Amino acid sequence: MLNEQYRAMLANKSVIRETFMFGKQRAAQIGYENVFDYSLGNPSVPCPPQFTAAMQQLLAAEEPVALHGYCPSQGDPVFRAAVAKSCAARFGLPYTANHIFPTTGAAGALSHALRAVTKPGDEVITFAPYFPEYGPYVVGTGAVLRVVPAKAPEFQPDLDAFEQLVSENTAAVLINTPNNPSGVVYSTATMQRLAKILTEKSAQYGQPIYLVSDEPYREIVFDGVDAPYPAAFYENTLTCYSFSKSLSLPGERIGYVAVRPGCVGEEVLVDMMAQISRFTGHNCPPSIIQRACAQCLDVTSDLSVYQTNMKLLYDKLTELGFEVQRPGGTFYIFPKALEADANAFCMKAREFDLLLVPGDSFGAPGYVRLAYCIDTEKVRRSLPAFEQLAAAYRR
Amino acid sequence: MLNEQYRAMLANKSVIRETFMFGKQRAAQIGYENVFDYSLGNPSVPCPPQFTAAMQQLLAAEEPVALHGYCPSQGDPVFRAAVAKSCAARFGLPYTANHIFPTTGAAGALSHALRAVTKPGDEVITFAPYFPEYGPYVVGTGAVLRVVPAKAPEFQPDLDAFEQLVSENTAAVLINTPNNPSGVVYSTATMQRLAKILTEKSAQYGQPIYLVSDEPYREIVFDGVDAPYPAAFYENTLTCYSFSKSLSLPGERIGYVAVRPGCVGEEVLVDMMAQISRFTGHNCPPSIIQRACAQCLDVTSDLSVYQTNMKLLYDKLTELGFEVQRPGGTFYIFPKALEADANAFCMKAREFDLLLVPGDSFGAPGYVRLAYCIDTEKVRRSLPAFEQLAAAYRR
Repeated sequence: MLNEQYRAMLANKSVIRETFMFGKQRAAQIGYENVFDYSLGNPSVPCPPQFTAAMQQLLAAEEPVALHGYCPSQGDPVFRAAVAKSCAARFGLPYTANHIFPTTGAAGALSHALRAVTKPGDEVITFAPYFPEYGPYVVGTGAVLRVVPAKAPEFQPDLDAFEQLVSENTAAVLINTPNNPSGVVYSTATMQRLAKILTEKSAQYGQPIYLVSDEPYREIVFDGVDAPYPAAFYENTLTCYSFSKSLSLPGERIGYVAVRPGCVGEEVLVDMMAQISRFTGHNCPPSIIQRACAQCLDVTSDLSVYQTNMKLLYDKLTELGFEVQRPGGTFYIFPKALEADANAFCMKAREFDLLLVPGDSFGAPGYVRLAYCIDTEKVRRSLPAFEQLAAAYRR
Repeated sequence: MLNEQYRAMLANKSVIRETFMFGKQRAAQIGYENVFDYSLGNPSVPCPPQFTAAMQQLLAAEEPVALHGYCPSQGDPVFRAAVAKSCAARFGLPYTANHIFPTTGAAGALSHALRAVTKPGDEVITFAPYFPEYGPYVVGTGAVLRVVPAKAPEFQPDLDAFEQLVSENTAAVLINTPNNPSGVVYSTATMQRLAKILTEKSAQYGQPIYLVSDEPYREIVFDGVDAPYPAAFYENTLTCYSFSKSLSLPGERIGYVAVRPGCVGEEVLVDMMAQISRFTGHNCPPSIIQRACAQCLDVTSDLSVYQTNMKLLYDKLTELGFEVQRPGGTFYIFPKALEADANAFCMKAREFDLLLVPGDSFGAPGYVRLAYCIDTEKVRRSLPAFEQLAAAYRR
């Protein structure tokens, strides 16, 4: 028999996906250039030339049996050592290759890290607004996701509410900074207090509460923004990284889990994640992509376009009277809708060919997400549409 | 707290892995060329030049944002269409792109296919000898693996025993032909009777029992061997394929599930597997690997070395009086050990620098697996060591 849990999910259409498909239909009617599609978080800048060159060099120079052969189940040793060296130098923590577990992007990283530090029935706490896929990632482990409500307008984590929610059932806390969908970067003060609460509660309950830090937007931080490294504040941290955004390689599925030196279980966590792979059919990320990325740890795509786009949108939205927090990073901005129902607001926006995503699925009803990983020229051309949208609410 | 289920697995050392590590140590002592390592199933021939050329052409000609961008969650449309066309032409079944779900190798394929057609508590039946990873693949779904004992010396599935084991709890049957570790190809008569039993039992219990067919060795079939395509015999078949062996790309993690046209749930199974990915952090296989493989569906590596090696080993083993079935495909052969305890036999073999793997973990105690995906010249040089090993048991 078909598994009814998974079949039932087919009825729940993704609003992001539905918006994207609407955009494609609309583009067929009025032309792609006239649809202002802010729905999808797909990087709009090419990978750095160093990645292409590394791939070409590997294909030209390496012996194919070795290049395309099985990895050890803990991942490619060259990639692991290179990531450890890079993280150690950058964050001042004594990472070694043994702390690094290569994964198929952040999705693979999160599903391994969460399985390693939870058991079915445990609770994982996250902070709204949050990436909707955290739902299935956590459910897939058998644990339960608890959400601390969003605290507008700044969208820093509400640590008073968090402190009330932590219990002896809390196995892990899942954070995402710079944040999808708000664009907010968690501040040093936030990280200090979060670490303090986690340390106190771990002591109180006599067991470590792990911090699982989802950081695909780590390299997209705007000028002058303080972007602390979460693992620097708290020993029991599993950092989940993806090269999807920094190298514009979302389809190539490459990332890692970095186990913080000093973490409880430091000596077994990577080996445990290699075992967890056997249950999910994950195995390692592709060999050649690991090898090529190992040569690109100190470069990124040209990410400056995201800051340019952010400024254009932030300035226009504030000028139009939107309540909106200035993003510190990512390629998202998360203004408050001009009516209580963000879904209705997004439908109204479509009248001006603006495709936005309601905040409901991110745990923040009443807000809308704009993914501004699109051409700057198109952002500019979309600004009059925002003016028209705002005007429609002033009538 | 660390997940104790996964931590406990670290104590269970893999005998294949341990044998491989022993081989590395021994090679340091006596030289790599003098260690006859038959432990690992890692292809020994390079990928076809068409794969390398396809990768280079994609890197040179394609726009990076599109080439490395996110796939649709059902996989790359070009790859899906190409696989469907190839399977339709080859197997005479009306596959379309909508029947194909790209995965990270056979491991990804099996974990998706099994989750789609089982629920926790269901039973999945397989036939010994079987690939040991079927254990975690099935446990990961929440279902229970039931094993039909091996039927020596032919190692065709014991269908009488199977018929007794099928019950209303049987959700799926998992087969692997050509078979790891026996090298045996399931015959047309086997497939006909298996399909008949599945059809009858499905009718009896009023629900389809799915056939999950694991076929990474499909292209490695030796001269004159009848190798039927399982899905041709039974509609409710999910074929799980990997390019690891046919294109010698085990590290690049690329394969697919093909849903048999006419299968119950045909219209939803691929969409369901795309949903299942969200729970395991799988996402699609890497974009560029999908694109390159789509151009290599009608080629393989030069697989002839495996037949050459098989003949050398089969002739020598039979000459030495081993009870052994002649392999019809794969790069494995599975003789009976010369003492009851195959583990003890493998330790004895090490005295002659022969690294073999006991059959216990494959569900067939008393037998040993040889993976002859090594240079033919080394196979030749290993033959005297087999003579010495056999002689040690005649003393």
